[in-house]
Amino acid sequence: MTIFSKIIAGEIPSYKIAENDNFYAFLDIFPLVEGHTLVVPKVETDKFFDVADEYMSEYLIFAKRIAHAIEKAVPCNRIGVSVVGLEVPHAHLHLIPINSANDMNFANAKLKLSPEEFKKIQEKIVKEL
Amino acid sequence: MTIFSKIIAGEIPSYKIAENDNFYAFLDIFPLVEGHTLVVPKVETDKFFDVADEYMSEYLIFAKRIAHAIEKAVPCNRIGVSVVGLEVPHAHLHLIPINSANDMNFANAKLKLSPEEFKKIQEKIVKEL
Repeated sequence: MTIFSKIIAGEIPSYKIAENDNFYAFLDIFPLVEGHTLVVPKVETDKFFDVADEYMSEYLIFAKRIAHAIEKAVPCNRIGVSVVGLEVPHAHLHLIPINSANDMNFANAKLKLSPEEFKKIQEKIVKEL
Repeated sequence: MTIFSKIIAGEIPSYKIAENDNFYAFLDIFPLVEGHTLVVPKVETDKFFDVADEYMSEYLIFAKRIAHAIEKAVPCNRIGVSVVGLEVPHAHLHLIPINSANDMNFANAKLKLSPEEFKKIQEKIVKEL
């Protein structure tokens, strides 16, 4: 069971943004910028492009609604997307509010936010859904 | 008409990888690594998440086949995905063969390849489709 499956199952707490039958979205606990969100298929698949077509066709439709909510909640030029996948063997897509390409550089220091700050961002995004 | 629409229309040459009714894929002329490919919806939309649902649902299905071909053609751990979109106002998705997260850092110097080198990479990927 991957760490993401434990989050989806509620065994590890998360700042949930949205969920449906096949996907779960929550705030990245090591955010590059405020509003950085992960979108994860509930079915465990290591590589992003090995996710089955039935989920692939819904992936961006589900992510889109969340991206628009983040864009309204967090001041930014637009929402960037990144799939790296070298650390957790469970496909995931990063939604990152960006003003420059550098906002998506994973070598940047991650933000350190308090639980109160995470909750506030979570509430702002959920309100826009 | 965006530069990508001119490429799709054949007014600007490209190293084409694949095409269907709604999408066009070609080698990025400023590649971060060999095999770096752009996947573009034929309909012009500035922001990625404003692409209409009818195309969104096909986007990753189309990209998946190309990602698997790149993965076979170019030695790498897996295919990364990036959507930035701050330079060309026509939604596009980068497929980048990666071995580390740093391979996806857009601040890195771009490779300078000759037309012969681009053609060779194009042929290797197309052969795997």
